[in-house]
Amino acid sequence: MPGANGYSVLFEPVKIGPVTTRNRFFQVPHCTGLGHVRPQAEAAVRAMKAEGGWSVVSTQETEIHPTSDLGPYAEHRLWDKHDVPALRLMTEQVHAKGSLAAIQLAHNGHHAMNHLTRAPVLGVSDRPIDVVYPKQARAMDKQDIRDLRRWHRDAALRARDAGFDIVYVYAGHQMTLAHHFLLPQYNSRSDEYGGSLQNRVRLTRELLEDTREVLDGHCAVAFRFAVDQMIGTDGMQAGEEGRAVVEMLADLPDLWDVNVADWSNDSQTTRFQPEDGYQLPYTEFVKQVTSKPVVGVGRFTSPDLMASLVSRGVLDLIGAARPSIADPFLPKKIEEGRIEEIRECIGCNICVSADNLGVPIRCTQNPTMGEEWRRKWHPEVIAPKQQEEAVLVVGSGPAGLECAMQLARRGYQVTLAEASGEFGGRVRKESRLKGLSAWKRVADNRLWDLQQRGNVQMFTGSLLTAAEVADLGIPNVFLATGSSWHRDGRGRTSPLALAMGGMPVFTPDDIMDGLLPPTDGPVLLYDDDQGYIGGVLASHLAAADRKVVLATPGAVASAFTELTLEQHRVQADLLQAGVEIIPLHALQSADASGALLSCIYTSRPRRVDCASVLMVTSRQRGTALYDDLTAHHADRFTTLELIGDAAAPGLIADAVFTGHLAARNFERDPEAADADWFRRELISLEDMGGA
Amino acid sequence: MPGANGYSVLFEPVKIGPVTTRNRFFQVPHCTGLGHVRPQAEAAVRAMKAEGGWSVVSTQETEIHPTSDLGPYAEHRLWDKHDVPALRLMTEQVHAKGSLAAIQLAHNGHHAMNHLTRAPVLGVSDRPIDVVYPKQARAMDKQDIRDLRRWHRDAALRARDAGFDIVYVYAGHQMTLAHHFLLPQYNSRSDEYGGSLQNRVRLTRELLEDTREVLDGHCAVAFRFAVDQMIGTDGMQAGEEGRAVVEMLADLPDLWDVNVADWSNDSQTTRFQPEDGYQLPYTEFVKQVTSKPVVGVGRFTSPDLMASLVSRGVLDLIGAARPSIADPFLPKKIEEGRIEEIRECIGCNICVSADNLGVPIRCTQNPTMGEEWRRKWHPEVIAPKQQEEAVLVVGSGPAGLECAMQLARRGYQVTLAEASGEFGGRVRKESRLKGLSAWKRVADNRLWDLQQRGNVQMFTGSLLTAAEVADLGIPNVFLATGSSWHRDGRGRTSPLALAMGGMPVFTPDDIMDGLLPPTDGPVLLYDDDQGYIGGVLASHLAAADRKVVLATPGAVASAFTELTLEQHRVQADLLQAGVEIIPLHALQSADASGALLSCIYTSRPRRVDCASVLMVTSRQRGTALYDDLTAHHADRFTTLELIGDAAAPGLIADAVFTGHLAARNFERDPEAADADWFRRELISLEDMGGA
Repeated sequence: MPGANGYSVLFEPVKIGPVTTRNRFFQVPHCTGLGHVRPQAEAAVRAMKAEGGWSVVSTQETEIHPTSDLGPYAEHRLWDKHDVPALRLMTEQVHAKGSLAAIQLAHNGHHAMNHLTRAPVLGVSDRPIDVVYPKQARAMDKQDIRDLRRWHRDAALRARDAGFDIVYVYAGHQMTLAHHFLLPQYNSRSDEYGGSLQNRVRLTRELLEDTREVLDGHCAVAFRFAVDQMIGTDGMQAGEEGRAVVEMLADLPDLWDVNVADWSNDSQTTRFQPEDGYQLPYTEFVKQVTSKPVVGVGRFTSPDLMASLVSRGVLDLIGAARPSIADPFLPKKIEEGRIEEIRECIGCNICVSADNLGVPIRCTQNPTMGEEWRRKWHPEVIAPKQQEEAVLVVGSGPAGLECAMQLARRGYQVTLAEASGEFGGRVRKESRLKGLSAWKRVADNRLWDLQQRGNVQMFTGSLLTAAEVADLGIPNVFLATGSSWHRDGRGRTSPLALAMGGMPVFTPDDIMDGLLPPTDGPVLLYDDDQGYIGGVLASHLAAADRKVVLATPGAVASAFTELTLEQHRVQADLLQAGVEIIPLHALQSADASGALLSCIYTSRPRRVDCASVLMVTSRQRGTALYDDLTAHHADRFTTLELIGDAAAPGLIADAVFTGHLAARNFERDPEAADADWFRRELISLEDMGGA
Repeated sequence: MPGANGYSVLFEPVKIGPVTTRNRFFQVPHCTGLGHVRPQAEAAVRAMKAEGGWSVVSTQETEIHPTSDLGPYAEHRLWDKHDVPALRLMTEQVHAKGSLAAIQLAHNGHHAMNHLTRAPVLGVSDRPIDVVYPKQARAMDKQDIRDLRRWHRDAALRARDAGFDIVYVYAGHQMTLAHHFLLPQYNSRSDEYGGSLQNRVRLTRELLEDTREVLDGHCAVAFRFAVDQMIGTDGMQAGEEGRAVVEMLADLPDLWDVNVADWSNDSQTTRFQPEDGYQLPYTEFVKQVTSKPVVGVGRFTSPDLMASLVSRGVLDLIGAARPSIADPFLPKKIEEGRIEEIRECIGCNICVSADNLGVPIRCTQNPTMGEEWRRKWHPEVIAPKQQEEAVLVVGSGPAGLECAMQLARRGYQVTLAEASGEFGGRVRKESRLKGLSAWKRVADNRLWDLQQRGNVQMFTGSLLTAAEVADLGIPNVFLATGSSWHRDGRGRTSPLALAMGGMPVFTPDDIMDGLLPPTDGPVLLYDDDQGYIGGVLASHLAAADRKVVLATPGAVASAFTELTLEQHRVQADLLQAGVEIIPLHALQSADASGALLSCIYTSRPRRVDCASVLMVTSRQRGTALYDDLTAHHADRFTTLELIGDAAAPGLIADAVFTGHLAARNFERDPEAADADWFRRELISLEDMGGA
């Protein structure tokens, strides 16, 4: 294709049954925390992907019946005709941008809790439901299976009515009945749906045949299948039954969408899996078995790898979830040769955490993700400047860089002042820690952008006093002066400083600045924060040959990382590295030779001998410059605004968001800006009838 | 009052500022998991309370602004005018039943996560937000406080517009800014809002004055205040600053609604606090300090105690949350002298668990709770019978008793056959365990009701074979044949039986039947279920002088009980009782002298010497009779239906629900019955504007 700059192979059409894509970029189904709870926002997310060049845009897993009720999670729903209009919003908007719309139908079996409907939970076998809750699924009988097939057929017809071009049968992530029937780990049936693989694949085959039959050539039928569970001989393996399933069903679907299970394996973070295309060793066999097109994933961000995969016949379509979240315009940027402009996914799974919380999707790299409807934000478009000319941004962490970049895009004369010798703030610092090197993309992408622009001046080593800022004569100042970790122990558990006697105390900032605790005894890492950084630091110090004792009031290490699907890997990694973990204990005090913990349940004391303490508790906002400016120079400024961690310490994603928000709202009508906070989707007060 | 059968004092009106109640029953604000997410269901819950005689019915805490965004939890919302219609549904329906409607306005400060709005989190001081998430609140400045007061005034006016009669200022549960400002544990300010109690109470006083001013006599102003944190000198105490606050604000509100903090103290379960009125020692002073009416709570279920509290001048109004959930008609039943008919709250906090999950409220005692809108269920009304005459219910656990009782109410000739020597099934068995005695109310209430009826025959010691059931000639049979705990180790973690060598293995059923493990060594309680029962059994065995080692793949004991606000007490209790807890380990196998565990992260083995194992893993449905009947006698029956744990093991609440549902749906049009599963509230697809 002309203009595709050497990547023309990626812009060839692909025939999928009765429909044809306009290129090879395929946004596979992924959750958003929007779904049936926020359908207008959901449609806007998907439409933006279509506008950015993804030739197929899929919605997330879609419940087909009240017995597959995933509430309170915000997936999609197609229980009956009442759900069609919400989904039609999405297909119409995706079609308007020239792409195909796909839907992943799901019956989640014992992965559903049915908390809203109180319907019986259906399973392949009698067993507890997936979540920790004292409730069991019952093994489906033959009538249940007939019902399920009917529900799936009816849902496929409703999907067609809603305007979808591609309808999925879904056997992946260990989250659906079709997958549970396939896996001996769940399936202990003795009838024709259990036992041999031929029997275990029966339900999937029936669902595929049913779907093909009722859609009757009006839509393509895709099959999403996890070829490997990544637990070796304890589960399905790509080289064994995984391949056999593909052989059995080879040409039955119009499209194979293949990945690995479970979700934590399919959506690995860069911290534990830095490689692009890490699923290929499992999925690359599929093209050899089927004549139908194959889409695969693996956090692809390199256009060279993508083109090579197509050229070598490994994949027909480049699948993506997270890379399409970080940059909805990835295909367009490749097509137009704007490779450097791609905002690469950093593989942090903040997107996943939002779905696990049941709240709207967010992205560290792309602050507009999830805001397309609410704030009408477009990732590539921002309003031009109005009256003001010059702005100063102090601090070049994620908030400062994002704010400066967006202000520069708007056309202001931007001065960016960084106190230290290097741009990037906490992103630069954290990316020095073990496993987090990919996170520096947050800074790299923005620095590259800023460096292309003629209206930006950037300074390192520029620690400004309030008087100096005032003397610059720039009337609009955004202060991204960050935060620093408290050394005194105050935090979530104790609002007050702790008495640390003669014990040497380090902070995360010390370690990120290159300091290391002494080697004459263990370092007690006290993780009262319970975010990700405590576990990262423990791993980092263990790799530097420190004996680490991680104590935390939490029940596990880095409890927050359950939301990013990392917790299991975090704790396994720490234990393998020899880190001792003392959960459910709070730090009370220390003296020169050790620390005193207390059990959060009984207050029983527990002493830990150590040579130093690394205090991971809470952060102090860096507001000194802001306080000085407001106290002594306020009359010199039109705008004086704290952004990022200096306004409120949070995730890197939060810092990027506040930097972006400040840039968008600058010179905007304050009432309109305030109104944005209130935008939401409301429940209809009309009774749907029935009952 | 004539007809109130000695409780006439409870049916006197009470003047609350400009409004007057029709009696002394006051449903204080409590969560429902409905709120702005399910406003039609919310209105129906509250209207049913009004119909049942609660003279004041309150909605749950109501967010006043996007900076107090509690999503994904389903509280109420009054951010702007768009939320008024949903709340007006509630006030109109409550008024139609003759009661007053109250609303509890809340700004939750750092208890809010603002996950939906991404707004800055506001706090009294800089500190981490309440939930484990790496995000901090910033201390409010003077402009923030002015804004908060404006938001609260505006919300009060919207509440009036929505039709509320009573508007709350809320300083309780350690969940609102007003409360956080009051407590030194949160408030470290050095301005006029921090330091002395006079300063810390300032914000509350301002909110009360503001609310009174804007409502201008159109609505009463209530103040909900936690007088004691139940942490002794580490927190606010009723005898110290708690009293001082009441003295300072004595006659400023029109009503004092007093309780204790935090939520786990306010909503204690019978397992840990069996006494009615357990909060009175903390709250009874309030009436002595203020001339305004006082409402208090404490899981009141005894009309004698209620009447005595009023007569003795301890309370003016009998507050209730949970007792009004278990029986919305409690006031009416007292008024009409139908004391025995009251469905007493068992204090299990299943209601609370639903709110903590963000799903609709459920109640163990009252299966219609949360179903008033969806299924149009009324707790006291059920359709009369149609064509059929006789029904047989086999099994008298919670499902069987509820099903039999409701079928008897409908007018059928009901035969209830219990195989064992006692009615009650699992409720009777579980209530023998330490701390659960109140749970037998589930059986007692239903047995009393059944015994009043002439159309019911009840048999114990009646273990029926399929042939005997067939020979009874009753064409409609409901099988509530329960479930039994697996002895072989299969469950959540392992789908297969475990090799237990020569180790004696007990099940929860054994212990509930009165068996005890041997005393010649520890008993290893393996809690793979992670519900409530494992912790209960451990406590029970410890009290029987057994050395207990509780091993579980969970991170804490009885992880499920976090949802019922009990987990902290469970684990503290076990540790105090000498139970050794080994979390994060799965049972692999055993031999005659011990068991082998493995770490869920590393698979590292860990051996535990023990003399027996108590296996708490999963349950086997009791379907033998059903299977035999369907296989050999199906033609003899019009109805053959499994209910309760025999259909799918779950909570007692689930069993009661399925028994109730079966009774409601009997002889009902199957299509209409099926349609009920689909009833739900849908998001409006109209854009609300703004942005």
